[in-house]
Amino acid sequence: MDRLRVTVWNENIHERREESVRRIYPDGMHAPIVEGLRRELGERVTVRVATLEEPEHGLTDHVLAETDVLTWWGHAAHDRVSDDVVAHVHARVLDGIGLVVLHSGHKSKIFMRLMGTTCDLRWRSDPGGERELIWTVSPSHPIAAGVPQPIVIPHQEMYGEFFDIPPPDELVFISSFAGGEVFRGGCGFHRGAGRIFYFGPADQEFPVYHQPEIQRVIANAVAWCGGATPANDQPSTRQANAQRDWFLAE
Amino acid sequence: MDRLRVTVWNENIHERREESVRRIYPDGMHAPIVEGLRRELGERVTVRVATLEEPEHGLTDHVLAETDVLTWWGHAAHDRVSDDVVAHVHARVLDGIGLVVLHSGHKSKIFMRLMGTTCDLRWRSDPGGERELIWTVSPSHPIAAGVPQPIVIPHQEMYGEFFDIPPPDELVFISSFAGGEVFRGGCGFHRGAGRIFYFGPADQEFPVYHQPEIQRVIANAVAWCGGATPANDQPSTRQANAQRDWFLAE
Amino acid sequence: MDRLRVTVWNENIHERREESVRRIYPDGMHAPIVEGLRRELGERVTVRVATLEEPEHGLTDHVLAETDVLTWWGHAAHDRVSDDVVAHVHARVLDGIGLVVLHSGHKSKIFMRLMGTTCDLRWRSDPGGERELIWTVSPSHPIAAGVPQPIVIPHQEMYGEFFDIPPPDELVFISSFAGGEVFRGGCGFHRGAGRIFYFGPADQEFPVYHQPEIQRVIANAVAWCGGATPANDQPSTRQANAQRDWFLAE
Amino acid sequence: MDRLRVTVWNENIHERREESVRRIYPDGMHAPIVEGLRRELGERVTVRVATLEEPEHGLTDHVLAETDVLTWWGHAAHDRVSDDVVAHVHARVLDGIGLVVLHSGHKSKIFMRLMGTTCDLRWRSDPGGERELIWTVSPSHPIAAGVPQPIVIPHQEMYGEFFDIPPPDELVFISSFAGGEVFRGGCGFHRGAGRIFYFGPADQEFPVYHQPEIQRVIANAVAWCGGATPANDQPSTRQANAQRDWFLAE
Repeated sequence: MDRLRVTVWNENIHERREESVRRIYPDGMHAPIVEGLRRELGERVTVRVATLEEPEHGLTDHVLAETDVLTWWGHAAHDRVSDDVVAHVHARVLDGIGLVVLHSGHKSKIFMRLMGTTCDLRWRSDPGGERELIWTVSPSHPIAAGVPQPIVIPHQEMYGEFFDIPPPDELVFISSFAGGEVFRGGCGFHRGAGRIFYFGPADQEFPVYHQPEIQRVIANAVAWCGGATPANDQPSTRQANAQRDWFLAE
Repeated sequence: MDRLRVTVWNENIHERREESVRRIYPDGMHAPIVEGLRRELGERVTVRVATLEEPEHGLTDHVLAETDVLTWWGHAAHDRVSDDVVAHVHARVLDGIGLVVLHSGHKSKIFMRLMGTTCDLRWRSDPGGERELIWTVSPSHPIAAGVPQPIVIPHQEMYGEFFDIPPPDELVFISSFAGGEVFRGGCGFHRGAGRIFYFGPADQEFPVYHQPEIQRVIANAVAWCGGATPANDQPSTRQANAQRDWFLAE
Repeated sequence: MDRLRVTVWNENIHERREESVRRIYPDGMHAPIVEGLRRELGERVTVRVATLEEPEHGLTDHVLAETDVLTWWGHAAHDRVSDDVVAHVHARVLDGIGLVVLHSGHKSKIFMRLMGTTCDLRWRSDPGGERELIWTVSPSHPIAAGVPQPIVIPHQEMYGEFFDIPPPDELVFISSFAGGEVFRGGCGFHRGAGRIFYFGPADQEFPVYHQPEIQRVIANAVAWCGGATPANDQPSTRQANAQRDWFLAE
Repeated sequence: MDRLRVTVWNENIHERREESVRRIYPDGMHAPIVEGLRRELGERVTVRVATLEEPEHGLTDHVLAETDVLTWWGHAAHDRVSDDVVAHVHARVLDGIGLVVLHSGHKSKIFMRLMGTTCDLRWRSDPGGERELIWTVSPSHPIAAGVPQPIVIPHQEMYGEFFDIPPPDELVFISSFAGGEVFRGGCGFHRGAGRIFYFGPADQEFPVYHQPEIQRVIANAVAWCGGATPANDQPSTRQANAQRDWFLAE
């Protein structure tokens, strides 16, 4: 099997502007994500990085044509992502590439466009964060493979219900927070010929992407989203008419 | 219980331009839809009509504020529907009104925006149409109440799979066509606090909206989409913080 | 509309054997359930009670023929429920009556048979119980109508994930517990022409069924489960053949 | 990766009793199924055969312990399958093995037990059969990989709606028949830690299992059902209590 070509997209703003974030992610938040993908998936993937500041945000025709799965982290600058790039990514997802949306990416243009809803949620951020427990509710799902029950994140920002997304096609994880809230933080969606996975952790203020279990989930999600097969159908008038002739001639 | 306030929206172009359509729908395609709603739902509804040519397409703030369920038929002029009106209807649906999308409305701006996909499908139109059989696959669903198994439409345009929509939250009807195609032609969706129902029949060239069974399904769909209750949650930071104080104080 | 005929089934063992339970439910656990149904649904229902000790557990042919919705609470004596009665209830549910399964009813014969899985779950019971918060994740669902976000149960036994049920067709509530666990505690299922709702609260050791919000949810669940319409289809060879003749003759 | 260990179970009665079936399947219906698995999956599988007449129907503890995916074809003798074997297979599926149920296996004890419903359907069998078209409605699903849109079966028995199963967790194929019926003939289910796929074709009277596209779908289904990962959770009181101590101590 050919290697899965993964593009890790990162807004890459907090890491450069804020000392508190730089201390946790000195090489950018994409660095531990890339590291986790390489450790978990090894020879099965090739990984490249793209960021907001690059021309076309690093998501040129060429890059998207060579991408099987795209991961997306953004927060401070959703509005600065160009509508053209969003339209291009949207078309590519419906055409079959995978998309893994992370944490605050729930308010990215691409996720809201694919979901069709506001993607708003309940939110609270305290300086020290609070404990998040991530429970698997679909224990045989490939994205839950090899993770403990539950995953414990010692310090994390609270994301809670109601989370305004369509009912997920595959609900894999539900989190609880120390404050008592719950969150559907691991949700799979099928759209067109593509697969999308939303994963709630983690915030720029906490070292969550350095946790091996979290890296494992992201790697599993990349593998799952990349597992869509070439579609055996394209909606097409011409085809329908052609086939009909054949049916009738039979 | 208060009456359900229904707005029947019709593009109303074919009926005025084409003699063949005018003969079938002399008072507009909305006329038999309104008639069916009144016959089936009687005192339970009040019905008004809105069309493309009216200011704001008849969907002013005032009208939308007084609408519990909106039905949508469009075909020739999807692009002429203003983006502002679409944004307003979109917000209202997520806020809790019902939306019943009919036939060629699958390519309307509002439906594509709520679905997040292309909503393309397989298509064939012969002058005389062909037989469509509509099978109930969720026999206890309220939208299937009181309809025969199957519903027979003698002459109809073919809509077939693959229909590029998200997997429906509730699949009620599947159609077959004389050419052998199938179509998920009765699909329920939950989005935000609102409910959406897509129903495949019928085309402007055939008298399908005069069939009592079809009118019955549309009335059932209006009742179901209007049955969403006032949401008990609004995603809100303020509320989350307030509640947390209360939890912690407890 | 005719009144919904509800049968509240209660094992009714703990209340008679254990002083601690009798103090909370002196008239049986069914008493506050019945009271809540009458307060919330008023003229829309008639309610009767049936218990394990009655002949055929009070679920005779006659009673089941006059039941539109059955609520089920059992715990200590699941095995003493006769297989014949279970088979009869199973057939009735597939035929269209509603079934509301409460708390420890997750291990009842009827629920396990309808689910096809073990229905096991994570469990912990401390003498004083612990706080359960019930969050609505489908805010427009009729079963969530009129309940606060979240519902707070001060003292309750912990039921947690993984809960071995089929993926729910409609997921309405997710609970968190003080210990950090989560639980899909409000789940709707469609089976045959019937509807089933599982609701996690409450235990015999805590006065949860006296809480008005809990009574409200149970009333909403009864109304929803009773809302299935007469099925428009019965699988039948004879019918299929008869219809085919008609199709072909057409 | 280790090879997937597949057990192809066949009732193997029609082939021995009826000349018309023996002519189509001289080595048993399992022969072309095995052949297809070997051609499509090659080194990725090892395949064994088990039949009704063997002791414990060939499904001993030893065989089930060494089975990752079980395929099931039965028709004339569902009642002769021992309840003990059914209970054992049921437990194994919930524990994580895959189950591919074929055609008339819809009325097998194991499928009805896992579904919890009657699994009845509309049915018609004419001597010559009729054309079935199998349409993919989830084009990126791995089970639809590499199959034409639609698959054409020239002569087949009609299975139609309403098919009394739970709403499928993943709906992959919908068939139409020459008589105009439709059928959800490709349905995926998640139960416990296992995956189940029901596939409608094919009957003992027609050479459907010799069609390469059908063999391909069965191979895809075996691969998908075998893709469940070891569950990361077992419902367990002991574990819950142990973990809680750890949470609280933290």
